[in-house]
Amino acid sequence: MTKKRLTLHEYINGIRAGERFILSRAITLMESTLEADQILAEELLEALLPFSGNSVRIGITGVPGVGKSTFINAIGPYLIKQGHKLAVLSIDPSSEISRGSILGDKTRMPELAQSPQAFIRPSATGSTLGGVAQKTRESMLLCEASGFDVIFIETVGVGQSETLVHQMVDCFLLLMLAGAGDELQGIKRGIMEMTDILVITKADGLYKAPAQQAKKEFQNALHLFPQAESQVNPEVLCCSALEPEGIEEVWQAIQYYYQQTQSNGYFQQRRQKQRLHWLHDTLGQQLKHLFYTHPAIQQELSWREKEVLEGTASPGKVARALMQKFIASSAQSN
Amino acid sequence: MTKKRLTLHEYINGIRAGERFILSRAITLMESTLEADQILAEELLEALLPFSGNSVRIGITGVPGVGKSTFINAIGPYLIKQGHKLAVLSIDPSSEISRGSILGDKTRMPELAQSPQAFIRPSATGSTLGGVAQKTRESMLLCEASGFDVIFIETVGVGQSETLVHQMVDCFLLLMLAGAGDELQGIKRGIMEMTDILVITKADGLYKAPAQQAKKEFQNALHLFPQAESQVNPEVLCCSALEPEGIEEVWQAIQYYYQQTQSNGYFQQRRQKQRLHWLHDTLGQQLKHLFYTHPAIQQELSWREKEVLEGTASPGKVARALMQKFIASSAQSN
Repeated sequence: MTKKRLTLHEYINGIRAGERFILSRAITLMESTLEADQILAEELLEALLPFSGNSVRIGITGVPGVGKSTFINAIGPYLIKQGHKLAVLSIDPSSEISRGSILGDKTRMPELAQSPQAFIRPSATGSTLGGVAQKTRESMLLCEASGFDVIFIETVGVGQSETLVHQMVDCFLLLMLAGAGDELQGIKRGIMEMTDILVITKADGLYKAPAQQAKKEFQNALHLFPQAESQVNPEVLCCSALEPEGIEEVWQAIQYYYQQTQSNGYFQQRRQKQRLHWLHDTLGQQLKHLFYTHPAIQQELSWREKEVLEGTASPGKVARALMQKFIASSAQSN
Repeated sequence: MTKKRLTLHEYINGIRAGERFILSRAITLMESTLEADQILAEELLEALLPFSGNSVRIGITGVPGVGKSTFINAIGPYLIKQGHKLAVLSIDPSSEISRGSILGDKTRMPELAQSPQAFIRPSATGSTLGGVAQKTRESMLLCEASGFDVIFIETVGVGQSETLVHQMVDCFLLLMLAGAGDELQGIKRGIMEMTDILVITKADGLYKAPAQQAKKEFQNALHLFPQAESQVNPEVLCCSALEPEGIEEVWQAIQYYYQQTQSNGYFQQRRQKQRLHWLHDTLGQQLKHLFYTHPAIQQELSWREKEVLEGTASPGKVARALMQKFIASSAQSN
């Protein structure tokens, strides 16, 4: 069964009315690589832009197994009970390669997926992680226009995806597991410094005491990091999705972070900077795409790279040669 | 008095013979923005590439006032006594704006400047920090071809310059001052994670005890950071240029770091990665330069940015419009 193509107005009205099915189709449209879809997607985004921005944008990261889905499945129903509408998006670095997503699957969050107040969407796929992130950011704007006022963007703590998530959220949560001794083992470099709130998960049963101990260690460690740009010191919390316990405290910490950053102006600054960042980031990506997919460059790149790796030609000389080729061919090919 | 223009062979022979005056002129040539100079500079770099790479490349950073010059002035003569030839280059973020350098001035290192075994060169200037860094990297290669076997690249611990220095050295030293209590106050985010060796300066007189205390605190803090990619745990050392004390120990720590990373293969990997990084970095810079200096883009950029900042147009739509303009005008203008 082929779906009838929706018009721009059908999309706009459906999304504004909070119809999850239309929202879902709009995100698919956004992810399409067809030229006609891309134009429609842009018009849609432009039309909905005035209705976006009014949500609490929260990034969630942590190593595989830390319990991100379980955490979201526990805090989600709590938020819905409080009257919120929650959208869960994800950026999955593996989707770049496999073109299929391991994250965001509705079966991972069975409880939440049943609620009409929740919207769960797996990671976009794309040829670059930057492209995947851009689609996720656009999906977030659509969700906001559809009335979702809490957005979770989750990612696994590997690769560059946290940095990309950090560039689109207001508040960044790092989920950690209390383990044996060296708590920071396995954490990616630089991630602690992006963290606004640190949550130690699975703080129950046998793990309750180690979690409390880990909390103290993290508090000490965070004290040694430089002051956060937000001027709000990162909170460290324990929580258990099983009991459940500490879920409400996490939400309170997020709200406290919002109040503080909104009153000191950091929140507004961060969002403005993010928009400008996304413009130049998009431009940079599109320029690189134009360059690296250019037939004249593709012909030469691999042996040129080999020269540089082996040290037989300087990066500067090779870059200059490739650029000259690019400029000359761009003029000819048009 | 205008200088006679040197030929490629005069440059090559002069540099290979270790003539500091010719080396200095070659670096000036490298920094020139004249087309003819750039072509000659590239030929020179290419010709000297086989003779480069045989040095210990050390990055040095720390906040203003930490005593970088004093430290270099103390370790420099020690290295020369050991039979080394030392070149000191710098990357000064302020040179981007002022087009004049506050760092690398010979008067800052009077003792070292007198030695024929030392070569001190102030920071290059340029329109972007990336451009400045590239010139510094190329100067480093010339110094190596001229027989300098220890290269210091210093920078002040502000802005992005440490990341750029980190991308061109084998071993990264962070200089710190023992102060009052919170030792990491004022350190830039992410810098601890780039540090291979941490040196606490001015550990003499009244500051000796606080320096020892700071050393312990740093050792504990570093333990909580993730394992370094080099697999070598960062050493923390105290030193005093005044006494002098601990200077030799710093050199030993650098040598130990070299031995370890050369035997575990990290050294070779890092240099290969750096070369490839510089190729793509240079390409990225040149592409952006081509784009942002294009008359068609310059006409539109500022009001387009304003739209994005104010939230009246999406970054994606604006990027697409600018890219279309760029592609269309590139074809026409040729």
